This record gives sequence, structure tokens and C-alpha cells, in this order.
Amino acid sequence: MKRIIIAVLVITGLACSRTDTLQTLVDARWIDLTHSFEENTIYWPTNKPFSKDTVFYGLTDKGYFYASFIYSAEEHGGTHFDAPLHFGHPGSPTVEQIPLEQLMGPGVVVDVSEKALEDRDYLVSVADFLAWEDSHGQIPDGSIILLRTGYGQFWPDPLAYTGTSLQGDEAVAHLRFPGLGPEAAQWLVDNRNIHLIGIDTPSIDRGQSVYFKAHRILCAAEISICENVANLDKLPESGSFIIALPMKIKGGSGAPLRIVAML
Amino acid sequence: MKRIIIAVLVITGLACSRTDTLQTLVDARWIDLTHSFEENTIYWPTNKPFSKDTVFYGLTDKGYFYASFIYSAEEHGGTHFDAPLHFGHPGSPTVEQIPLEQLMGPGVVVDVSEKALEDRDYLVSVADFLAWEDSHGQIPDGSIILLRTGYGQFWPDPLAYTGTSLQGDEAVAHLRFPGLGPEAAQWLVDNRNIHLIGIDTPSIDRGQSVYFKAHRILCAAEISICENVANLDKLPESGSFIIALPMKIKGGSGAPLRIVAML
Repeated sequence: MKRIIIAVLVITGLACSRTDTLQTLVDARWIDLTHSFEENTIYWPTNKPFSKDTVFYGLTDKGYFYASFIYSAEEHGGTHFDAPLHFGHPGSPTVEQIPLEQLMGPGVVVDVSEKALEDRDYLVSVADFLAWEDSHGQIPDGSIILLRTGYGQFWPDPLAYTGTSLQGDEAVAHLRFPGLGPEAAQWLVDNRNIHLIGIDTPSIDRGQSVYFKAHRILCAAEISICENVANLDKLPESGSFIIALPMKIKGGSGAPLRIVAML
Repeated sequence: MKRIIIAVLVITGLACSRTDTLQTLVDARWIDLTHSFEENTIYWPTNKPFSKDTVFYGLTDKGYFYASFIYSAEEHGGTHFDAPLHFGHPGSPTVEQIPLEQLMGPGVVVDVSEKALEDRDYLVSVADFLAWEDSHGQIPDGSIILLRTGYGQFWPDPLAYTGTSLQGDEAVAHLRFPGLGPEAAQWLVDNRNIHLIGIDTPSIDRGQSVYFKAHRILCAAEISICENVANLDKLPESGSFIIALPMKIKGGSGAPLRIVAML
């Protein structure tokens, strides 16, 4: 009888990695972690905003309806992806060079919203990562870390979300939103083996950053970054699977990103 | 003993839908079905091609490297997504309105490459779908059908891929590549329940199409379309899981698409 049980285990085990996985994917609940691109999509205040113009909209001379638009965007606005080139060096990987496997992984949601909503200049620390690990075990290899600062709820109000409603160069000094501390970025690079890191603010470095050290540390380590990530309040702290697919711009330092979670 | 076996089945069944599925996803092999966006990306000959300009590239005055670009693109070039609005009516769903669940599903690869490579005007027929079903069973509900014409191998050579290297209005009459027959589009709408349909040519309607009937039938039925899909020769005819994530352009009739397959 033991043999039968083992056979059953083996058979169900095999089934699990094929048909059942396909069925689980089909039945899964997915959450979109992406803001739409539209007129009021938040861009860095020195960037040109997203624009979309009509190429054709209406009835054609052949009698059927047709609609088509053209758009223009900087790489680093809205929900977007920073490839290592962005703050790396001329040889750093660009968007289209990141292997698909690196764009996916178990979701690790580090919720610092209580502290960050009290302090617009909050820096996520090593202690925040260790607190997550106290509850869920070590951050798994290949994880996608998502920093939940709570500022996602303010999208798309520029004043509440970024700290300023000004535009252009004069806005930069007024940017105030939380980010990842450079020491914590370095700790991740040295001690954990993650695929990506994302945040629900305009930048992985906090608004008041001048030298963008978290970006530089991560890009030097060839860890790509996801910014302006949406709906992090809808994710559990662990147990999700994240898929982050940037537009495949050859040579891109970044790109608009569609990022989703499977629960 | 039967009870024990049933318990084992239930336990392994449960494990399968959580931890094991996550592990299967982590270990899975993924294939990118997306062409890069770059200077020679193929667009419809009357469209503006993709352009990317440098915002900044090099050392900043603070001593670190920085790179950033701005790009412009029509919605319907390169590997891209057609929302129902494209050939539908003013109330048809736009890109950001398509539910995530509709952007995923089991991959059904219908390989007509032998016939289509002999006949640039080939139309995929109901018989081609029935031939797939003879081998693999009925096209599952929620499938993503991918029409493999074999023309993907010619990318990005415009003459071989589209039938002409001309640009502008004078090129249109010279477009010659295979597509989906309108009768077969109508048959799918009436008889099967698919999530998306994709093809490895510039358009679901063949190059010589004048009235774009396959587009119009699919858009009226609110079935979105993926065009210029890459690497279909690397997919099995069944057994893959497809995820097609368009850039989330609000009100978009289409968008650049990142489409991937899990094997």
C-alpha cells in the first residue's frame, strides 16, 4: 500500500507541474499594479508630460469606424522601469537586455506606510527588511521587493504625492516623498539576491535626494527599479507572484511598465 | 487505506495550488514573443516610425553617470495590441479597460506556415482551426490563439515581411502578407470563447485587405488583437500559457505590447 501512496504522490506531483499549474494560472486572481498613462500622469517635474494625439477617429471613406493615436513620453514617468543604464555606466544593461526571468519573482511587500505617512522624508532601512524577515523568513532569492510607503493613495495629486505642484527646475527642491535609504540599498546588494525592487513613489531615492545614491547602488549592481507602482495596499506581504514587463525599448534607460501580481 | 490515499490526494492538491504553483512559476521557462522597439521596427507604411531622442547621456555636474531618453510612437507598430476601439465604435473598450484576466490564457498555436510561405495572400480558415482541434481537442475557453504564418522569420526586412519596402500611401497597395480570413474570424466569434488572437505579421487582416473585415468582426465582438508577434516558432502548438501586457494608455485604440509565454 505504501507503494500505491508513493505512486499517487508522484503522479499528482507530476500533474501539479503541468496541467494543474496551467489551471491555477487560468483561475488565478490578478491585480494590476500599474497607473494609466494619460494627461495627468505624474512625471518628474523637469520632464515633458505624456502626450497623446489623434491620428484618425471616426468613419472612414469606406464606411467603417477607425481610431488611431500617436503618443510621446519620457521613459521615466508614470508606472515605469529603470534599467541599470539609467544611473549606471555606458556598458550597463538596457531595457531590452534584461532577461524575462529577472522580471518576475515572488512578491515581498515591505510595508512602511505607518512611518512614511508621518514623515515625508522617511528612508526605508535595513531594520525594515529585517522586520519583514522576522515575520516571513529570509527574503527569497529572486524576489521582487515592493516598498509600500502609502503614498500611492495620493496618486495623481502632485502636491500630496510628490510634495509640490510646481513644474520645471524650481519644483525639484520642493519634492518630498519617502524612498529607500542608501545603506539599505547597499545591504540588499551585499546580502540578498533579488530580481527587482519597486516603490509607490516617483523615485526609489526620496524626494529630497540630491545624489540619487540608492539608484546608483542598485544600477551598479544591475538591479532594475520599478517606480510609481500602484495598488500595493491590495497585496499581501508575501505569497504573491509579480510579473513586471517594460515596453521593450532597445537601448532604453527605462520604459513604461505594466506590472501585475498573481495572488 | 482508501481514506489515506484520498487524504494524500487532497493535501498534494492543496499544496499544488499555492507553494508548488509559486515554485513552478519561479522555475518556469519563459519565451519573449516581443520584437524590440528601435529605428528599424516595422510600422504600417503610412505611420510615423518609432523615434527615440536623448534627454541626457553622460556625466552630470555632480559627478555621476546618468542616461534618459524620450520616445514617440504610433500605437499600431512593432509588437502591439489592438483594443476593440481600433475598428469598433466610439463606445468600444480601450486599452486600459481590458481586464487583466482577458490578457492571459492557454496558448493555441495554429501553424499555417507551410501554406502561407507558399502563398503571400494566404487566409487562415475554419479548416485550419479544426485541424488544430483534431490534434489537441477543442480550443479551450479563454485561450489566446496565435497564428503562426512563418513570416516572423523575415522581421525586420520590410520587403520580405510586408511585401514592400516602399513607405507612405503608395506602399499600401503593395502590402502582401497572410492574415485571418473574415469567415474564420466570424466562426471564432460564434463558436469559441477566446481571450485574444495574435499573428506574426503586421495585421490580422492580410496585406491585400481593403475593408479590414477580420479586424472589424473581432473588434465588434470585443476581442483584442496582437500583431507583429515574435518567436512563434519557439512555442509548442499547445501547453503554453500566454501573458500579453500592453502599455496602459488611457483611451488608447492600441499600445506597444510585451507578450510572453510560459512553457
